[in-house]
Amino acid sequence: MDQKQLKQILENVKDGNMSVDEACLKVREAPYTDIGYARIDNHRALRQGCAEVIYGAGKTAEQILGISMTMKERGVPCILITRISPEKELLLRGRFEPYRYEEISRTAIIGKMPEADGMGQIVVATGGTSDIPVSEEAALTAEALGNKVLRLYDVGVSGLHRLLDHLDDLMSATVIIAVAGMEGALASVIGGLVSCPVIAVPTSVGYGANFNGLSALLSMLNSCASGVSVVNIDNGFGAGYQASMINHLSGS
Amino acid sequence: MDQKQLKQILENVKDGNMSVDEACLKVREAPYTDIGYARIDNHRALRQGCAEVIYGAGKTAEQILGISMTMKERGVPCILITRISPEKELLLRGRFEPYRYEEISRTAIIGKMPEADGMGQIVVATGGTSDIPVSEEAALTAEALGNKVLRLYDVGVSGLHRLLDHLDDLMSATVIIAVAGMEGALASVIGGLVSCPVIAVPTSVGYGANFNGLSALLSMLNSCASGVSVVNIDNGFGAGYQASMINHLSGS
Amino acid sequence: MDQKQLKQILENVKDGNMSVDEACLKVREAPYTDIGYARIDNHRALRQGCAEVIYGAGKTAEQILGISMTMKERGVPCILITRISPEKELLLRGRFEPYRYEEISRTAIIGKMPEADGMGQIVVATGGTSDIPVSEEAALTAEALGNKVLRLYDVGVSGLHRLLDHLDDLMSATVIIAVAGMEGALASVIGGLVSCPVIAVPTSVGYGANFNGLSALLSMLNSCASGVSVVNIDNGFGAGYQASMINHLSGS
Amino acid sequence: MDQKQLKQILENVKDGNMSVDEACLKVREAPYTDIGYARIDNHRALRQGCAEVIYGAGKTAEQILGISMTMKERGVPCILITRISPEKELLLRGRFEPYRYEEISRTAIIGKMPEADGMGQIVVATGGTSDIPVSEEAALTAEALGNKVLRLYDVGVSGLHRLLDHLDDLMSATVIIAVAGMEGALASVIGGLVSCPVIAVPTSVGYGANFNGLSALLSMLNSCASGVSVVNIDNGFGAGYQASMINHLSGS
Amino acid sequence: MDQKQLKQILENVKDGNMSVDEACLKVREAPYTDIGYARIDNHRALRQGCAEVIYGAGKTAEQILGISMTMKERGVPCILITRISPEKELLLRGRFEPYRYEEISRTAIIGKMPEADGMGQIVVATGGTSDIPVSEEAALTAEALGNKVLRLYDVGVSGLHRLLDHLDDLMSATVIIAVAGMEGALASVIGGLVSCPVIAVPTSVGYGANFNGLSALLSMLNSCASGVSVVNIDNGFGAGYQASMINHLSGS
Amino acid sequence: MDQKQLKQILENVKDGNMSVDEACLKVREAPYTDIGYARIDNHRALRQGCAEVIYGAGKTAEQILGISMTMKERGVPCILITRISPEKELLLRGRFEPYRYEEISRTAIIGKMPEADGMGQIVVATGGTSDIPVSEEAALTAEALGNKVLRLYDVGVSGLHRLLDHLDDLMSATVIIAVAGMEGALASVIGGLVSCPVIAVPTSVGYGANFNGLSALLSMLNSCASGVSVVNIDNGFGAGYQASMINHLSGS
Amino acid sequence: MDQKQLKQILENVKDGNMSVDEACLKVREAPYTDIGYARIDNHRALRQGCAEVIYGAGKTAEQILGISMTMKERGVPCILITRISPEKELLLRGRFEPYRYEEISRTAIIGKMPEADGMGQIVVATGGTSDIPVSEEAALTAEALGNKVLRLYDVGVSGLHRLLDHLDDLMSATVIIAVAGMEGALASVIGGLVSCPVIAVPTSVGYGANFNGLSALLSMLNSCASGVSVVNIDNGFGAGYQASMINHLSGS
Amino acid sequence: MDQKQLKQILENVKDGNMSVDEACLKVREAPYTDIGYARIDNHRALRQGCAEVIYGAGKTAEQILGISMTMKERGVPCILITRISPEKELLLRGRFEPYRYEEISRTAIIGKMPEADGMGQIVVATGGTSDIPVSEEAALTAEALGNKVLRLYDVGVSGLHRLLDHLDDLMSATVIIAVAGMEGALASVIGGLVSCPVIAVPTSVGYGANFNGLSALLSMLNSCASGVSVVNIDNGFGAGYQASMINHLSGS
Repeated sequence: MDQKQLKQILENVKDGNMSVDEACLKVREAPYTDIGYARIDNHRALRQGCAEVIYGAGKTAEQILGISMTMKERGVPCILITRISPEKELLLRGRFEPYRYEEISRTAIIGKMPEADGMGQIVVATGGTSDIPVSEEAALTAEALGNKVLRLYDVGVSGLHRLLDHLDDLMSATVIIAVAGMEGALASVIGGLVSCPVIAVPTSVGYGANFNGLSALLSMLNSCASGVSVVNIDNGFGAGYQASMINHLSGS
Repeated sequence: MDQKQLKQILENVKDGNMSVDEACLKVREAPYTDIGYARIDNHRALRQGCAEVIYGAGKTAEQILGISMTMKERGVPCILITRISPEKELLLRGRFEPYRYEEISRTAIIGKMPEADGMGQIVVATGGTSDIPVSEEAALTAEALGNKVLRLYDVGVSGLHRLLDHLDDLMSATVIIAVAGMEGALASVIGGLVSCPVIAVPTSVGYGANFNGLSALLSMLNSCASGVSVVNIDNGFGAGYQASMINHLSGS
Repeated sequence: MDQKQLKQILENVKDGNMSVDEACLKVREAPYTDIGYARIDNHRALRQGCAEVIYGAGKTAEQILGISMTMKERGVPCILITRISPEKELLLRGRFEPYRYEEISRTAIIGKMPEADGMGQIVVATGGTSDIPVSEEAALTAEALGNKVLRLYDVGVSGLHRLLDHLDDLMSATVIIAVAGMEGALASVIGGLVSCPVIAVPTSVGYGANFNGLSALLSMLNSCASGVSVVNIDNGFGAGYQASMINHLSGS
Repeated sequence: MDQKQLKQILENVKDGNMSVDEACLKVREAPYTDIGYARIDNHRALRQGCAEVIYGAGKTAEQILGISMTMKERGVPCILITRISPEKELLLRGRFEPYRYEEISRTAIIGKMPEADGMGQIVVATGGTSDIPVSEEAALTAEALGNKVLRLYDVGVSGLHRLLDHLDDLMSATVIIAVAGMEGALASVIGGLVSCPVIAVPTSVGYGANFNGLSALLSMLNSCASGVSVVNIDNGFGAGYQASMINHLSGS
Repeated sequence: MDQKQLKQILENVKDGNMSVDEACLKVREAPYTDIGYARIDNHRALRQGCAEVIYGAGKTAEQILGISMTMKERGVPCILITRISPEKELLLRGRFEPYRYEEISRTAIIGKMPEADGMGQIVVATGGTSDIPVSEEAALTAEALGNKVLRLYDVGVSGLHRLLDHLDDLMSATVIIAVAGMEGALASVIGGLVSCPVIAVPTSVGYGANFNGLSALLSMLNSCASGVSVVNIDNGFGAGYQASMINHLSGS
Repeated sequence: MDQKQLKQILENVKDGNMSVDEACLKVREAPYTDIGYARIDNHRALRQGCAEVIYGAGKTAEQILGISMTMKERGVPCILITRISPEKELLLRGRFEPYRYEEISRTAIIGKMPEADGMGQIVVATGGTSDIPVSEEAALTAEALGNKVLRLYDVGVSGLHRLLDHLDDLMSATVIIAVAGMEGALASVIGGLVSCPVIAVPTSVGYGANFNGLSALLSMLNSCASGVSVVNIDNGFGAGYQASMINHLSGS
Repeated sequence: MDQKQLKQILENVKDGNMSVDEACLKVREAPYTDIGYARIDNHRALRQGCAEVIYGAGKTAEQILGISMTMKERGVPCILITRISPEKELLLRGRFEPYRYEEISRTAIIGKMPEADGMGQIVVATGGTSDIPVSEEAALTAEALGNKVLRLYDVGVSGLHRLLDHLDDLMSATVIIAVAGMEGALASVIGGLVSCPVIAVPTSVGYGANFNGLSALLSMLNSCASGVSVVNIDNGFGAGYQASMINHLSGS
Repeated sequence: MDQKQLKQILENVKDGNMSVDEACLKVREAPYTDIGYARIDNHRALRQGCAEVIYGAGKTAEQILGISMTMKERGVPCILITRISPEKELLLRGRFEPYRYEEISRTAIIGKMPEADGMGQIVVATGGTSDIPVSEEAALTAEALGNKVLRLYDVGVSGLHRLLDHLDDLMSATVIIAVAGMEGALASVIGGLVSCPVIAVPTSVGYGANFNGLSALLSMLNSCASGVSVVNIDNGFGAGYQASMINHLSGS
């Protein structure tokens, strides 16, 4: 509740247009309604067609279906469901139209992807084929939030020429999401080549002294390139979400 | 070296305006000069007055002085030196004009801070007084790279009202840098309140099971708020640098 | 065995009312019987109707049934069995009346829950739906030990308004159990809002750099709010047990 | 700001006794002033004579002196300063009366310790002489917050008879603070003997595989005794603070 | 090969009773045959009836059967097979007489257990029922190597009286094996009560901040009691083996 | 692209034998084509008959079949597929001739193993039978890359005589691959005996404080013997690959 | 207090030879006096001339002097003070006769070392010169407790021949203390050669991935040789103490 | 002692040319003298002029001087002393001729560096200036062992063009030592470019989540490039030593 809204309520009370009890209720609830989640809702409302996201892990198929149907009824044009297993996904099939399920990243999409309305293009770069599930989660999240996404999926540092072949794509990106497991060197190498923000996503791909993604995580946090920040291991959604935030800043 | 420059060299060779040897040299060196560092240089050149940065830790006072003087001669209008101890700083005193040294963050600034030319305002928020040195490194870095910075330095989550008092400032930021040690909850709480990107900087402030910043680092990586990414422990410079990148995107 | 009891035995021996052998037996066993477990038993006996607890993990269904039946025969009015899987629970079904099984927290309750006889109300607060199993273990334990419990299950820090909506409930609690996974910020935020003791329960909910609850554990141990203490990861029982101890102190 | 206060403001506006602007200011500031810190202040005010606490680590001697003098002027009858080194303490000497400095725990006390007004007695138990600095921080904190404290300082588990000699003291405590380094077994042994809450404080005392307190911390978190909760390594203050909260519950 | 044996071979060569080639072979093989394994064999031969041990984990049922039959044929009177799953054990059934399989510790015993011929009695003490599998591995190993073993299986530190009830047993032991998971305090408490060597076995029993036995391991390594040494997590065999070595020292 | 090739292109442009556009294309693509992977290809071409390697983990059976068939068609004489499970391997059976599958190391070999053409012999030494799968991956990799390999598979340090029996083999090796789990002492002991490079492979064999290979890894990194380097836990392929590189150096 | 002593007291009460109050006192105090420390005292008394030990770390010079003088007065013939720095040691000089200070292990010895009265000889083996301080602490402790000690200080596994040169010494030991830093392989190699108990002492000697002794600690806990147990990093005293216990078993 | 030597001794005994006692002595000592260190000595003797190495850390200046003088007297032409501090080095000054001290890597060299007699050239590549001390230790070690070394000291991955400028040098190396701190990406990038063995040296350069070199260590162990092996953090000597072994293989 901003200064103006509060003043209006108080003027109404003063003028006898609103009872003290009603004002009391409005004032007590308003700041909290206004803080956080709801404010994000309003902001989102400004960008029609943009998706809402359901985090599927730890929810039952029934819960996911229920939330999806409520959202659909509320008129959400596009719903992105991350980390939903093929077993759970069966319950959604045939219930929505349009609908698709991307098995590699375990993502379901209900409704129509929005038009891209961001500042520029988001590049999702990844080194090995095993990193693709996380990369796709990032890419689909960014697309569902209204971004143009370019996927560069064969550009690991052990074959540097493939990365350098895509220098122009990298150089012209607004934000780059660098997804890598094992030693996570991709983030540093890309960070040293470009001058846009790089969001690094360590993956749990690897074995042994990889310690479930710890090696890539530490590597990325210690990047010798400026302009690199990091999200949680395997957190493709988080990277796609922040990249979209950055790519839509010019619109604010 | 882009397509156009290369074509020009080849045309010159074809027309006899450039010898094969000279072209040979130019082509071999150009791509590498053009990749990475140099490209950043040119990009920077477009934003006159913006600072170059010297990482002071691990360099001798003499090395820092030498690099600073070379940069000065090359015409760099503002030089930011991070992590330079008071002892080393003595050697710089009286050599440059204007010059100032910020002891709390151990940062020296040679020349005039550039005008702020970014998209909006960067907020640097921190909870405890012990986190201020890292926060100041972030804030000064952002200012030296041409950003308007608002410092909110008394807003830790154990006194939530102080944070909520600054909701308007948080809501209107382009990027927020959340600096926190101990349990690092500040990043999640801010990330849940705003809809702009949050760059979280864990600090090594604390003791015991803090393990030199590990607790804040893990906390921030696991933030339940979307839109939060993380840099290395105590890496105020990195956060300020990436925040500036994001804040200048609209200019590209 | 306190001074008085010992004196009585010795007097009896002196007066010939007790044989040396009998006294010998009583003295040797008494201190140990009196120390620890048994003493707790007596204490418990003072609070009729309060539950005894069986830790189900690592016991066979047959063992659990056996212990339960023995307790029942000894007249224990309410038996709480924690961490009992649905498979093991089958053996208990139909054997006791009243009986219920709470699948979400894997807890079985034999007999009637006791009346709440504590000082005030215990609040169990949790942020995400994935933390509910641990929260329910805490809440049921507290109820089985004779406490009034209020569950606040949708109050994570990424939607701060939902937490603030329940400020009155938080403020009036005797003890608060804060259950959270991921970054565990809930404990710090609640600890900063209230002036009663907060028992923090880190959960293993999360992935990647969560390291099975390590991030929430470290976060809670480093809480910047005073008055927060921590139990083991996922230890809902321990939190409920200590909260009940605190809530019954005034009765002693 | 509770319902009643808000209603009063609105009534005043309605009746023309308060201007809209004035009301506006009051409403916006009140909830935040009222949440958290300030609310604790008021609560404290109810218990006259109770100390305020300054965390000395990371503050300069000048800052500590300044805060202390302000508090003194505000009429705070007792000020506890934790983790203040002998060097910094020199600046305080002679400035306050009464004043004392406890070198072993590096704690300064300005003013008169309050009368004990809690429910019962807090026992601070510790095994080795090296754990005494942390124990004293806990004990002095509890005393400064108005609690009667009994120190049991020679009761480690490697000499079990000394602990058992104090069974009566342990049994009659309201809360026990168990301070131990090395293997931290003291908390489990005490927790198995008593039926009151035990707050365990791991200390960094030890060497080698102690890893600066990690061994005692993990040991205490995994205590096989119910009713034990844990604070950060070496956090005597936190344990004393929570113990005081528990010991004063009956007064609420 | 000791000095005397070598001299004898050389004398034989000198005297022509042994060919140079034969001596050559004997000398080259002897030292190595004599070092380590074989020497243990000879030593063992002195204690007729003592078992040989097969480590079952990582071997196929067929391999275990093969080794067992070879040993049997070589006349080994008792064979102990550790960590053999019920599935693999099926292949051994009915092949040997006498034969028994202890499912709780997953140990098979072929042949007759030897008479106890050690210095005194080995006590295996354990706190919780979940630690019994590891304790049984230790106890059976010690028995198979010719030791009298007393099992004390209900003596955890959270019920100290049960431990103290067995003080006489503990005091009269030659060696004590203390098996404990969770916080591992049992080793320290026993170590503080007795004056014989204590071998501590941390177990992986527990959850959360137990980190698969790390808490008990660190706790035991940091024991404040002198005379405690530690083996690997869950290594009941190793503890039983070393305890037997110690208990048979007087025989050498 | 080396100096000579570039000069030739430029000469062609100068002489009008190549259009500017064509030259432009050649120059831009050449350096990257020439860097890395392709260059390795050419190098490999010099050693006819040597295998190409497919890393099977994380690839579907169909992908492995596809890559294998393409390689076969390209004329690769020997294809080594590492970490391919028995289930996936079924799809390859009967498709290639010659073909074999080594179940113990989960390695498939399509085509004929090349002749050994290295400098000398590679020794693969391992202590326990559980380490053999990793050892075989190393040995088969080295053989497939054209090396003579000697396997010493029963030479752990707990039976030192077996290792010393093979001193001559160890002494005459060009490179030794030391594979060991548990405490990883084999690498240090071998490293102290020989004067050739030792590549140490820690394995995840063990339990408890082994922490999935961490103990062997740290042990090997801290080897007191000079001349030992280490690869990732269980990385038999990496060790075989580097050993082959070293063994073929003399051929360059 | 055993059955017989208790019966005697009760008989005395019954017969009127002891008052109830006196009996009361005796019974309450006896068990605790009898448990633990005191019992060890009595045991020690049986072995006249054996040293008492003061752990010097964390005690002031004055405290050490005080305790030493009290012990001296009580008639303790030999006092061993471990971990006493040269600075603190100055205060002891000239106060006792005989007296000596071993700077390398920072150990002071007041009085005359006792005669060796153990079963056999304790061998203290160490690899590098940097491990000697810890080895000396172990050796002096064992000597002060009445053991014959053989030091083998140049027998690391990187020069295996030096270790094998001392096979006879190793083979004839009653207990071996193996002290090693870095990769800690010495314990496994010795454990594989001998058939007596080996107590392994990891040291913090090393750098980098040694992590202050963690590598040697894990290595030793995972020893592939049976009969090896481990004490804390750098805990020479603990190893010497347990070795003495074992070496004196035959005397009990 | 090989078969031939042994046979000769035995023949001598048989023929009466050697007494049994003399033979006895020769046989017992020979194998051990022949194993390990001495054997390395003989090998070294074949490469005249090559340095012997003294590890200076943990030795006193007097010890270093003593060993150096003994070596000098034994005729060692070049002595390399690693990790010798400037304070200790003072004692060596003026005692030897030729002599030099390299302060940056804390290395002293007594005598004349040997001629390079290896197979090819060793490249030591490093990214940042802070890694130079470790790099120089590697380079000087390799030179002292008779290798030609090329230093590439400004080629970190955040400025990829500088690395690519030296592709020819990298491509023509026999072995490459890649020294890097922070995220350690240099090893992977070089490993992906070349086809010779790469020895990676993680350094402790960095801060925060670097954890004293852990990030670079894990990164290098998880390198996605084949042919990379790793030595301990900051172990320049180990890398130089193994590189020399590899580079001299062709000579064997």
